[in-house]
Amino acid sequence: MKKYRADIVVTLKNGVRDPQGAAIDTVLKRTGMEESAEVHVGKYFNLVISGENEESAKQKLDKICEDVLSNPILESYKVERFTEV
Amino acid sequence: MKKYRADIVVTLKNGVRDPQGAAIDTVLKRTGMEESAEVHVGKYFNLVISGENEESAKQKLDKICEDVLSNPILESYKVERFTEV
Repeated sequence: MKKYRADIVVTLKNGVRDPQGAAIDTVLKRTGMEESAEVHVGKYFNLVISGENEESAKQKLDKICEDVLSNPILESYKVERFTEV
Repeated sequence: MKKYRADIVVTLKNGVRDPQGAAIDTVLKRTGMEESAEVHVGKYFNLVISGENEESAKQKLDKICEDVLSNPILESYKVERFTEV
């Protein structure tokens, strides 16, 4: 059994309202830090996945991302890093 | 004035309790998906920073990360991407 460490970023799909991002935009504008920062907020996950090989570990990771870490109706996920440990 | 797009990840510092991560660990274990996933949860931000040059934009970004996007007592941040747009 091999172990892999993965970084996942989950973000809202295009067109889904991002009130947290809008709130930060407002703060940055009001404080004069940035006029138009176009902030998008998402979630970040770092986790360890075990598997016979990279292929099967990636398949398991996809299932975890779809079923547990994201809501596929509103959010999409991206595997940012995937390395054996 | 140049514009840069940055990806930021904010995570809890070592030793700070991560109840969200622990909750996901429990779910993955209970469902038989992963025995010990060691999940760490963080926040992800994508934003646009303007500046005279890369140096001054990065300085502004650091200030925004410390003052607005993270709580430096509990969290640390990392600039994952920084590219001119």
